[in-house]
Amino acid sequence: MTAPVIVLVAPQMGENIGMVARAMANFGLNRLRIVAPRDGWPNEKARAASSGAVAIVDAASVHATLADAVADLQFLYATTARPRDMLKPVVRPKEAAAGLRARSARGIATGILFGRERTGLENDEVALAQAILTFPVDPAFASLNLAQAVLLVAYEWMQAGGEGAARPVPAPPELLPASAADLEGLHTHLENALEEARYFRVAEKREHMTQGLRNIFAKANLTEPEVRALRGAIAALERRWLKRSLKIGGV
Amino acid sequence: MTAPVIVLVAPQMGENIGMVARAMANFGLNRLRIVAPRDGWPNEKARAASSGAVAIVDAASVHATLADAVADLQFLYATTARPRDMLKPVVRPKEAAAGLRARSARGIATGILFGRERTGLENDEVALAQAILTFPVDPAFASLNLAQAVLLVAYEWMQAGGEGAARPVPAPPELLPASAADLEGLHTHLENALEEARYFRVAEKREHMTQGLRNIFAKANLTEPEVRALRGAIAALERRWLKRSLKIGGV
Repeated sequence: MTAPVIVLVAPQMGENIGMVARAMANFGLNRLRIVAPRDGWPNEKARAASSGAVAIVDAASVHATLADAVADLQFLYATTARPRDMLKPVVRPKEAAAGLRARSARGIATGILFGRERTGLENDEVALAQAILTFPVDPAFASLNLAQAVLLVAYEWMQAGGEGAARPVPAPPELLPASAADLEGLHTHLENALEEARYFRVAEKREHMTQGLRNIFAKANLTEPEVRALRGAIAALERRWLKRSLKIGGV
Repeated sequence: MTAPVIVLVAPQMGENIGMVARAMANFGLNRLRIVAPRDGWPNEKARAASSGAVAIVDAASVHATLADAVADLQFLYATTARPRDMLKPVVRPKEAAAGLRARSARGIATGILFGRERTGLENDEVALAQAILTFPVDPAFASLNLAQAVLLVAYEWMQAGGEGAARPVPAPPELLPASAADLEGLHTHLENALEEARYFRVAEKREHMTQGLRNIFAKANLTEPEVRALRGAIAALERRWLKRSLKIGGV
Protein backbone atom coordinates (compact mmCIF):
# COMPACT_ATOMS: atom_id res chain seq x y z
CA MET A 1 0.00 0.00 0.00
CA THR A 2 1.32 3.42 -0.99
CA ALA A 3 0.94 6.12 1.63
CA PRO A 4 -0.52 9.49 0.65
CA VAL A 5 1.68 12.38 -0.44
CA ILE A 6 1.72 15.56 1.64
CA VAL A 7 1.71 18.58 -0.69
CA LEU A 8 2.63 22.00 0.71
CA VAL A 9 1.55 24.86 -1.49
CA ALA A 10 3.79 27.94 -1.32
CA PRO A 11 4.92 27.50 2.28
CA GLN A 12 6.66 30.57 3.65
CA MET A 13 8.80 29.54 6.60
CA GLY A 14 11.46 26.87 6.35
CA GLU A 15 10.83 26.06 10.01
CA ASN A 16 7.28 25.09 9.16
CA ILE A 17 8.41 22.72 6.44
CA GLY A 18 10.74 21.06 8.91
CA MET A 19 7.95 20.77 11.49
CA VAL A 20 5.69 19.25 8.86
CA ALA A 21 8.32 16.59 8.13
CA ARG A 22 8.56 15.87 11.80
CA ALA A 23 4.79 15.59 12.21
CA MET A 24 4.68 13.19 9.25
CA ALA A 25 7.47 10.99 10.59
CA ASN A 26 5.68 10.51 13.87
CA PHE A 27 2.86 8.79 12.09
CA GLY A 28 4.59 6.90 9.35
CA LEU A 29 4.20 9.28 6.41
CA ASN A 30 7.29 10.18 4.39
CA ARG A 31 6.36 11.47 0.93
CA LEU A 32 6.57 15.26 0.80
CA ARG A 33 6.19 17.59 -2.17
CA ILE A 34 6.61 21.33 -2.02
CA VAL A 35 5.22 23.85 -4.47
CA ALA A 36 7.06 27.15 -4.90
CA PRO A 37 8.58 27.52 -1.43
CA ARG A 38 8.99 31.23 -0.73
CA ASP A 39 12.58 31.01 0.43
CA GLY A 40 13.82 28.66 -2.26
CA TRP A 41 15.23 25.19 -1.94
CA PRO A 42 17.12 23.56 -0.31
CA ASN A 43 16.36 25.33 2.93
CA GLU A 44 18.62 24.88 5.95
CA LYS A 45 15.96 26.06 8.35
CA ALA A 46 13.69 23.31 7.14
CA ARG A 47 16.42 20.76 7.72
CA ALA A 48 17.19 22.10 11.18
CA ALA A 49 13.54 22.17 12.28
CA SER A 50 12.87 18.65 11.08
CA SER A 51 14.46 17.34 14.23
CA GLY A 52 15.56 13.96 12.94
CA ALA A 53 13.07 13.74 10.10
CA VAL A 54 15.66 15.31 7.85
CA ALA A 55 15.49 12.38 5.46
CA ILE A 56 11.95 13.42 4.58
CA VAL A 57 13.06 17.00 3.92
CA ASP A 58 15.97 15.86 1.79
CA ALA A 59 13.80 13.50 -0.22
CA ALA A 60 11.09 16.11 -0.82
CA SER A 61 10.48 17.09 -4.41
CA VAL A 62 10.04 20.74 -5.32
CA HIS A 63 7.69 21.91 -8.05
CA ALA A 64 7.02 25.19 -9.77
CA THR A 65 3.28 24.66 -9.96
CA LEU A 66 0.68 22.71 -8.05
CA ALA A 67 -0.48 21.07 -11.26
CA ASP A 68 2.98 19.67 -11.73
CA ALA A 69 3.22 18.51 -8.13
CA VAL A 70 0.04 16.48 -8.28
CA ALA A 71 0.18 15.29 -11.87
CA ASP A 72 0.49 11.60 -11.01
CA LEU A 73 -1.95 11.61 -8.10
CA GLN A 74 -5.41 10.16 -8.50
CA PHE A 75 -7.31 11.49 -5.53
CA LEU A 76 -6.72 14.75 -3.70
CA TYR A 77 -8.03 16.23 -0.49
CA ALA A 78 -7.72 20.00 -0.12
CA THR A 79 -7.46 21.18 3.48
CA THR A 80 -9.34 24.35 4.35
CA ALA A 81 -9.92 26.18 7.59
CA ARG A 82 -13.65 26.07 7.06
CA PRO A 83 -15.89 24.37 4.54
CA ARG A 84 -16.25 26.44 1.38
CA ASP A 85 -19.14 26.45 -1.07
CA MET A 86 -17.35 24.18 -3.40
CA LEU A 87 -20.04 21.59 -3.93
CA LYS A 88 -17.57 18.96 -2.92
CA PRO A 89 -17.74 16.40 -0.19
CA VAL A 90 -16.42 17.88 3.04
CA VAL A 91 -14.87 15.46 5.48
CA ARG A 92 -13.11 15.47 8.84
CA PRO A 93 -9.60 14.04 9.30
CA LYS A 94 -10.95 10.73 10.49
CA GLU A 95 -13.16 10.15 7.47
CA ALA A 96 -10.40 11.40 5.20
CA ALA A 97 -8.00 8.89 6.70
CA ALA A 98 -10.45 6.06 6.11
CA GLY A 99 -10.87 7.26 2.53
CA LEU A 100 -7.13 7.45 2.01
CA ARG A 101 -6.60 3.96 3.40
CA ALA A 102 -9.32 2.51 1.22
CA ARG A 103 -7.90 4.15 -1.88
CA SER A 104 -4.31 3.25 -1.10
CA ALA A 105 -5.39 -0.34 -0.66
CA ARG A 106 -6.83 -0.26 -4.17
CA GLY A 107 -3.60 1.14 -5.58
CA ILE A 108 -4.91 4.68 -6.01
CA ALA A 109 -2.28 7.39 -5.59
CA THR A 110 -3.52 9.99 -3.12
CA GLY A 111 -2.41 13.37 -1.85
CA ILE A 112 -3.42 16.01 0.65
CA LEU A 113 -2.98 19.69 -0.17
CA PHE A 114 -2.03 22.20 2.52
CA GLY A 115 -2.04 25.93 1.75
CA ARG A 116 0.04 28.93 2.77
CA GLU A 117 0.54 29.67 6.45
CA ARG A 118 -1.77 32.68 6.58
CA THR A 119 -4.07 32.51 3.61
CA GLY A 120 -4.42 28.82 2.88
CA LEU A 121 -5.28 27.44 -0.53
CA GLU A 122 -6.70 29.60 -3.26
CA ASN A 123 -9.94 28.63 -4.90
CA ASP A 124 -8.32 27.39 -8.09
CA GLU A 125 -6.07 25.18 -6.01
CA VAL A 126 -8.97 23.76 -4.04
CA ALA A 127 -10.62 23.13 -7.38
CA LEU A 128 -8.03 20.48 -8.19
CA ALA A 129 -9.14 18.34 -5.30
CA GLN A 130 -11.88 15.72 -5.26
CA ALA A 131 -12.86 16.46 -1.68
CA ILE A 132 -12.34 18.98 1.08
CA LEU A 133 -10.77 18.12 4.39
CA THR A 134 -11.61 20.42 7.26
CA PHE A 135 -10.87 20.29 10.98
CA PRO A 136 -13.41 20.13 13.80
CA VAL A 137 -11.99 23.15 15.58
CA ASP A 138 -13.83 25.45 17.92
CA PRO A 139 -15.44 28.02 15.59
CA ALA A 140 -14.61 30.68 18.15
CA PHE A 141 -10.90 29.92 17.90
CA ALA A 142 -9.68 28.28 14.73
CA SER A 143 -5.96 28.65 14.47
CA LEU A 144 -4.21 25.43 13.57
CA ASN A 145 -0.79 26.02 12.17
CA LEU A 146 0.54 24.18 9.15
CA ALA A 147 2.42 21.46 11.03
CA GLN A 148 -0.51 20.93 13.40
CA ALA A 149 -2.90 20.43 10.50
CA VAL A 150 -0.50 17.90 8.97
CA LEU A 151 -0.08 16.26 12.36
CA LEU A 152 -3.82 15.64 12.76
CA VAL A 153 -4.12 14.14 9.29
CA ALA A 154 -1.05 11.95 9.78
CA TYR A 155 -2.33 10.88 13.19
CA GLU A 156 -5.66 9.79 11.75
CA TRP A 157 -3.87 8.03 8.90
CA MET A 158 -1.96 6.00 11.48
CA GLN A 159 -5.12 5.37 13.52
CA ALA A 160 -6.97 4.12 10.46
CA GLY A 161 -4.14 1.72 9.78
CA GLY A 162 -4.86 -1.12 12.08
CA GLU A 163 -1.20 -2.15 11.97
CA GLY A 164 0.63 -0.07 14.51
CA ALA A 165 -2.58 1.72 15.32
CA ALA A 166 -3.43 -0.68 18.06
CA ARG A 167 -0.77 -3.30 18.22
CA PRO A 168 -1.25 -5.07 21.52
CA VAL A 169 1.94 -4.89 23.52
CA PRO A 170 2.37 -8.31 25.15
CA ALA A 171 2.77 -7.97 28.87
CA PRO A 172 5.90 -9.38 30.52
CA PRO A 173 5.03 -12.06 33.07
CA GLU A 174 5.62 -9.79 36.04
CA LEU A 175 2.87 -7.53 34.77
CA LEU A 176 0.27 -10.25 34.67
CA PRO A 177 -2.49 -10.10 37.28
CA ALA A 178 -2.03 -12.05 40.47
CA SER A 179 -3.98 -15.26 40.84
CA ALA A 180 -7.13 -15.46 42.93
CA ALA A 181 -5.17 -17.62 45.36
CA ASP A 182 -2.53 -14.91 45.77
CA LEU A 183 -5.27 -12.36 46.40
CA GLU A 184 -6.95 -14.62 48.90
CA GLY A 185 -3.64 -14.95 50.73
CA LEU A 186 -3.31 -11.19 50.86
CA HIS A 187 -6.84 -10.71 52.15
CA THR A 188 -6.47 -13.35 54.82
CA HIS A 189 -3.15 -11.92 55.93
CA LEU A 190 -4.59 -8.41 56.20
CA GLU A 191 -7.77 -9.50 57.91
CA ASN A 192 -5.92 -11.55 60.50
CA ALA A 193 -3.63 -8.63 61.24
CA LEU A 194 -6.60 -6.29 61.57
CA GLU A 195 -8.43 -8.79 63.74
CA GLU A 196 -5.54 -8.86 66.18
CA ALA A 197 -5.38 -5.08 66.01
CA ARG A 198 -9.08 -4.85 66.94
CA TYR A 199 -9.95 -3.01 63.77
CA PHE A 200 -13.33 -4.75 63.64
CA ARG A 201 -14.68 -3.32 66.84
CA VAL A 202 -18.33 -3.77 65.91
CA ALA A 203 -18.91 -7.42 65.03
CA GLU A 204 -21.86 -6.76 62.72
CA LYS A 205 -19.76 -4.42 60.63
CA ARG A 206 -16.95 -6.90 60.12
CA GLU A 207 -18.24 -8.39 56.90
CA HIS A 208 -19.02 -5.03 55.38
CA MET A 209 -15.59 -3.67 56.27
CA THR A 210 -13.84 -6.76 55.00
CA GLN A 211 -15.67 -6.56 51.71
CA GLY A 212 -14.76 -2.92 51.38
CA LEU A 213 -11.07 -3.74 51.70
CA ARG A 214 -11.35 -6.66 49.30
CA ASN A 215 -13.01 -4.40 46.75
CA ILE A 216 -10.11 -2.00 46.94
CA PHE A 217 -7.57 -4.66 46.09
CA ALA A 218 -9.80 -6.19 43.44
CA LYS A 219 -10.09 -2.85 41.68
CA ALA A 220 -6.34 -2.39 41.70
CA ASN A 221 -5.74 -5.34 39.35
CA LEU A 222 -2.78 -6.34 41.45
CA THR A 223 0.17 -8.19 40.01
CA GLU A 224 1.96 -10.90 41.92
CA PRO A 225 4.91 -8.62 42.87
CA GLU A 226 2.42 -6.06 44.12
CA VAL A 227 0.71 -8.64 46.28
CA ARG A 228 4.12 -9.48 47.71
CA ALA A 229 4.87 -5.80 48.37
CA LEU A 230 1.59 -5.36 50.22
CA ARG A 231 2.14 -8.48 52.28
CA GLY A 232 5.60 -7.22 53.09
CA ALA A 233 4.12 -3.96 54.31
CA ILE A 234 1.57 -5.74 56.48
CA ALA A 235 4.26 -8.04 57.84
CA ALA A 236 6.43 -5.03 58.65
CA LEU A 237 3.62 -3.42 60.60
CA GLU A 238 3.13 -6.71 62.46
CA ARG A 239 6.83 -7.15 63.16
CA ARG A 240 6.94 -3.66 64.51
CA TRP A 241 4.61 -4.63 67.29
CA LEU A 242 6.54 -7.81 67.92
CA LYS A 243 9.89 -6.07 68.12
CA ARG A 244 8.63 -3.31 70.32
CA SER A 245 6.87 -5.66 72.70
CA LEU A 246 9.95 -7.86 72.93
CA LYS A 247 12.03 -4.84 73.60
CA ILE A 248 9.65 -3.59 76.23
CA GLY A 249 9.28 -7.08 77.66
CA GLY A 250 13.04 -7.35 77.84
CA VAL A 251 13.51 -4.09 79.72
CA MET B 1 -19.74 19.30 32.41
CA THR B 2 -16.29 20.39 33.50
CA ALA B 3 -13.56 20.02 30.93
CA PRO B 4 -10.26 18.43 31.91
CA VAL B 5 -7.36 20.48 33.22
CA ILE B 6 -4.13 20.49 31.24
CA VAL B 7 -1.19 20.29 33.66
CA LEU B 8 2.30 21.15 32.39
CA VAL B 9 5.07 19.89 34.65
CA ALA B 10 8.20 22.05 34.64
CA PRO B 11 7.91 23.33 31.08
CA GLN B 12 11.08 25.03 29.90
CA MET B 13 10.21 27.30 26.98
CA GLY B 14 7.61 30.05 27.26
CA GLU B 15 6.91 29.58 23.56
CA ASN B 16 5.82 26.02 24.21
CA ILE B 17 3.41 27.12 26.91
CA GLY B 18 1.89 29.60 24.48
CA MET B 19 1.62 26.95 21.78
CA VAL B 20 -0.07 24.63 24.25
CA ALA B 21 -2.66 27.31 25.01
CA ARG B 22 -3.26 27.72 21.32
CA ALA B 23 -3.62 23.98 20.78
CA MET B 24 -6.12 23.85 23.63
CA ALA B 25 -8.19 26.77 22.33
CA ASN B 26 -8.62 25.12 18.95
CA PHE B 27 -10.49 22.30 20.57
CA GLY B 28 -12.41 23.99 23.33
CA LEU B 29 -10.14 23.38 26.33
CA ASN B 30 -9.22 26.34 28.51
CA ARG B 31 -8.07 25.20 31.97
CA LEU B 32 -4.30 25.31 32.24
CA ARG B 33 -2.07 24.71 35.26
CA ILE B 34 1.68 25.03 35.24
CA VAL B 35 4.07 23.46 37.73
CA ALA B 36 7.41 25.18 38.33
CA PRO B 37 7.93 26.81 34.92
CA ARG B 38 11.66 27.11 34.35
CA ASP B 39 11.60 30.78 33.36
CA GLY B 40 9.19 31.99 36.02
CA TRP B 41 5.77 33.50 35.64
CA PRO B 42 4.25 35.53 34.04
CA ASN B 43 6.13 34.84 30.83
CA GLU B 44 5.87 37.26 27.92
CA LYS B 45 7.06 34.64 25.44
CA ALA B 46 4.19 32.41 26.45
CA ARG B 47 1.75 35.24 25.90
CA ALA B 48 3.24 36.11 22.52
CA ALA B 49 3.23 32.52 21.27
CA SER B 50 -0.35 31.90 22.34
CA SER B 51 -1.49 33.69 19.20
CA GLY B 52 -4.89 34.81 20.40
CA ALA B 53 -5.27 32.23 23.15
CA VAL B 54 -3.71 34.68 25.55
CA ALA B 55 -6.74 34.50 27.85
CA ILE B 56 -5.82 30.88 28.61
CA VAL B 57 -2.24 31.85 29.43
CA ASP B 58 -3.38 34.71 31.64
CA ALA B 59 -5.86 32.53 33.48
CA ALA B 60 -3.36 29.70 34.03
CA SER B 61 -2.51 28.94 37.62
CA VAL B 62 1.08 28.34 38.63
CA HIS B 63 2.09 25.86 41.32
CA ALA B 64 5.30 25.04 43.12
CA THR B 65 4.64 21.32 43.15
CA LEU B 66 2.68 18.84 41.10
CA ALA B 67 0.91 17.63 44.23
CA ASP B 68 -0.41 21.14 44.77
CA ALA B 69 -1.46 21.51 41.14
CA VAL B 70 -3.58 18.36 41.16
CA ALA B 71 -4.83 18.39 44.76
CA ASP B 72 -8.49 18.81 43.81
CA LEU B 73 -8.44 16.49 40.80
CA GLN B 74 -9.95 13.03 41.00
CA PHE B 75 -8.66 11.25 37.93
CA LEU B 76 -5.34 11.84 36.23
CA TYR B 77 -3.81 10.65 33.00
CA ALA B 78 -0.02 10.84 32.75
CA THR B 79 1.27 11.21 29.21
CA THR B 80 4.40 9.25 28.36
CA ALA B 81 6.31 8.76 25.12
CA ARG B 82 6.10 5.03 25.46
CA PRO B 83 4.29 2.73 27.84
CA ARG B 84 6.31 2.23 31.00
CA ASP B 85 6.27 -0.71 33.33
CA MET B 86 3.92 1.08 35.61
CA LEU B 87 1.29 -1.60 35.93
CA LYS B 88 -1.35 0.93 35.04
CA PRO B 89 -3.87 0.94 32.25
CA VAL B 90 -2.29 2.38 29.11
CA VAL B 91 -4.63 4.09 26.67
CA ARG B 92 -4.45 5.97 23.40
CA PRO B 93 -5.74 9.56 23.05
CA LYS B 94 -9.07 8.38 21.69
CA GLU B 95 -9.81 6.07 24.59
CA ALA B 96 -8.55 8.69 27.01
CA ALA B 97 -10.93 11.25 25.52
CA ALA B 98 -13.85 8.87 25.94
CA GLY B 99 -12.77 8.25 29.52
CA LEU B 100 -12.48 11.97 30.20
CA ARG B 101 -15.91 12.68 28.74
CA ALA B 102 -17.51 9.92 30.77
CA ARG B 103 -15.91 11.14 33.98
CA SER B 104 -16.68 14.79 33.33
CA ALA B 105 -20.29 13.82 32.80
CA ARG B 106 -20.32 12.26 36.26
CA GLY B 107 -18.87 15.39 37.80
CA ILE B 108 -15.40 13.93 38.30
CA ALA B 109 -12.58 16.47 38.09
CA THR B 110 -9.98 15.23 35.61
CA GLY B 111 -6.52 16.29 34.51
CA ILE B 112 -3.86 15.30 32.02
CA LEU B 113 -0.21 15.58 32.99
CA PHE B 114 2.42 16.55 30.42
CA GLY B 115 6.11 16.40 31.32
CA ARG B 116 9.20 18.40 30.50
CA GLU B 117 10.08 19.02 26.87
CA ARG B 118 13.00 16.63 26.72
CA THR B 119 12.67 14.26 29.57
CA GLY B 120 8.94 14.00 30.17
CA LEU B 121 7.44 13.03 33.51
CA GLU B 122 9.47 11.44 36.25
CA ASN B 123 8.38 8.15 37.73
CA ASP B 124 7.10 9.67 40.95
CA GLU B 125 4.99 12.06 38.88
CA VAL B 126 3.55 9.26 36.78
CA ALA B 127 2.80 7.45 40.03
CA LEU B 128 0.19 10.11 40.86
CA ALA B 129 -1.91 9.18 37.84
CA GLN B 130 -4.57 6.52 37.57
CA ALA B 131 -3.77 5.74 33.95
CA ILE B 132 -1.15 6.33 31.29
CA LEU B 133 -1.86 8.06 28.03
CA THR B 134 0.49 7.27 25.21
CA PHE B 135 0.49 8.15 21.52
CA PRO B 136 0.32 5.71 18.63
CA VAL B 137 3.44 7.09 17.01
CA ASP B 138 5.77 5.26 14.67
CA PRO B 139 8.16 3.46 17.01
CA ALA B 140 10.98 4.31 14.58
CA PHE B 141 10.36 8.04 14.98
CA ALA B 142 8.62 9.19 18.10
CA SER B 143 9.11 12.90 18.53
CA LEU B 144 5.91 14.71 19.38
CA ASN B 145 6.59 18.07 20.91
CA LEU B 146 4.69 19.35 23.91
CA ALA B 147 2.09 21.38 22.03
CA GLN B 148 1.54 18.58 19.53
CA ALA B 149 0.87 16.11 22.31
CA VAL B 150 -1.62 18.51 23.86
CA LEU B 151 -3.14 19.12 20.43
CA LEU B 152 -3.87 15.43 19.87
CA VAL B 153 -5.48 15.05 23.26
CA ALA B 154 -7.56 18.20 22.82
CA TYR B 155 -8.56 17.10 19.33
CA GLU B 156 -9.80 13.75 20.59
CA TRP B 157 -11.58 15.49 23.46
CA MET B 158 -13.48 17.58 20.91
CA GLN B 159 -14.14 14.52 18.74
CA ALA B 160 -15.52 12.58 21.68
CA GLY B 161 -17.98 15.37 22.38
CA GLY B 162 -20.42 14.80 19.59
CA GLU B 163 -23.84 16.17 20.11
CA GLY B 164 -25.39 15.00 23.34
CA ALA B 165 -22.43 12.71 23.85
CA ALA B 166 -22.19 13.43 27.51
CA ARG B 167 -25.33 14.31 29.37
CA PRO B 168 -24.25 14.94 32.95
CA VAL B 169 -25.35 12.19 35.31
CA PRO B 170 -23.70 13.20 38.57
CA ALA B 171 -22.52 10.27 40.63
CA PRO B 172 -23.47 10.04 44.30
CA PRO B 173 -20.68 11.64 46.34
CA GLU B 174 -19.59 8.39 47.99
CA LEU B 175 -18.77 6.89 44.61
CA LEU B 176 -16.63 9.76 43.44
CA PRO B 177 -12.88 9.23 43.30
CA ALA B 178 -10.85 10.62 46.14
CA SER B 179 -8.93 13.78 45.40
CA ALA B 180 -5.19 13.75 44.85
CA ALA B 181 -4.84 15.50 48.22
CA ASP B 182 -6.72 12.67 49.95
CA LEU B 183 -4.48 10.13 48.24
CA GLU B 184 -1.42 12.07 49.27
CA GLY B 185 -2.64 11.91 52.87
CA LEU B 186 -3.05 8.15 52.62
CA HIS B 187 0.41 7.67 51.14
CA THR B 188 2.07 9.82 53.75
CA HIS B 189 0.25 8.00 56.53
CA LEU B 190 1.26 4.59 55.20
CA GLU B 191 4.84 5.58 54.50
CA ASN B 192 5.31 7.04 57.95
CA ALA B 193 3.92 3.91 59.54
CA LEU B 194 6.19 1.73 57.42
CA GLU B 195 9.14 3.94 58.19
CA GLU B 196 8.61 3.41 61.90
CA ALA B 197 8.16 -0.29 61.27
CA ARG B 198 11.50 -0.41 59.44
CA TYR B 199 9.91 -1.66 56.26
CA PHE B 200 12.47 0.26 54.22
CA ARG B 201 15.50 -1.61 55.40
CA VAL B 202 17.62 -0.78 52.36
CA ALA B 203 17.72 2.98 51.95
CA GLU B 204 18.33 2.90 48.20
CA LYS B 205 15.22 0.84 47.67
CA ARG B 206 12.96 3.20 49.58
CA GLU B 207 11.91 5.28 46.61
CA HIS B 208 11.24 2.29 44.43
CA MET B 209 9.20 0.58 47.14
CA THR B 210 7.26 3.75 47.90
CA GLN B 211 6.42 4.25 44.26
CA GLY B 212 5.28 0.67 43.99
CA LEU B 213 2.82 1.16 46.83
CA ARG B 214 1.63 4.48 45.42
CA ASN B 215 0.99 2.84 42.07
CA ILE B 216 -1.17 0.21 43.71
CA PHE B 217 -3.45 2.81 45.25
CA ALA B 218 -3.48 4.98 42.14
CA LYS B 219 -4.65 2.01 40.09
CA ALA B 220 -7.44 1.25 42.53
CA ASN B 221 -9.36 4.45 41.75
CA LEU B 222 -10.06 4.84 45.43
CA THR B 223 -13.14 6.67 46.64
CA GLU B 224 -12.98 8.95 49.62
CA PRO B 225 -14.65 6.39 51.96
CA GLU B 226 -12.14 3.81 50.76
CA VAL B 227 -9.27 6.12 51.61
CA ARG B 228 -10.77 6.49 55.06
CA ALA B 229 -11.12 2.72 55.44
CA LEU B 230 -7.48 2.19 54.51
CA ARG B 231 -6.30 4.88 56.86
CA GLY B 232 -8.42 3.30 59.56
CA ALA B 233 -6.73 -0.04 58.90
CA ILE B 234 -3.27 1.52 59.07
CA ALA B 235 -4.20 3.37 62.23
CA ALA B 236 -5.47 0.13 63.76
CA LEU B 237 -2.19 -1.61 63.02
CA GLU B 238 -0.38 1.32 64.60
CA ARG B 239 -2.63 1.39 67.65
CA ARG B 240 -2.14 -2.32 68.08
CA TRP B 241 1.47 -1.78 68.87
CA LEU B 242 0.58 1.00 71.23
CA LYS B 243 -2.00 -1.04 73.11
CA ARG B 244 0.13 -4.14 73.37
CA SER B 245 3.13 -2.28 74.54
CA LEU B 246 1.06 -0.49 77.18
CA LYS B 247 -0.39 -3.82 78.26
CA ILE B 248 2.99 -5.46 78.40
CA GLY B 249 4.44 -2.47 80.09
CA GLY B 250 1.66 -2.66 82.67
CA VAL B 251 2.14 -6.33 83.44
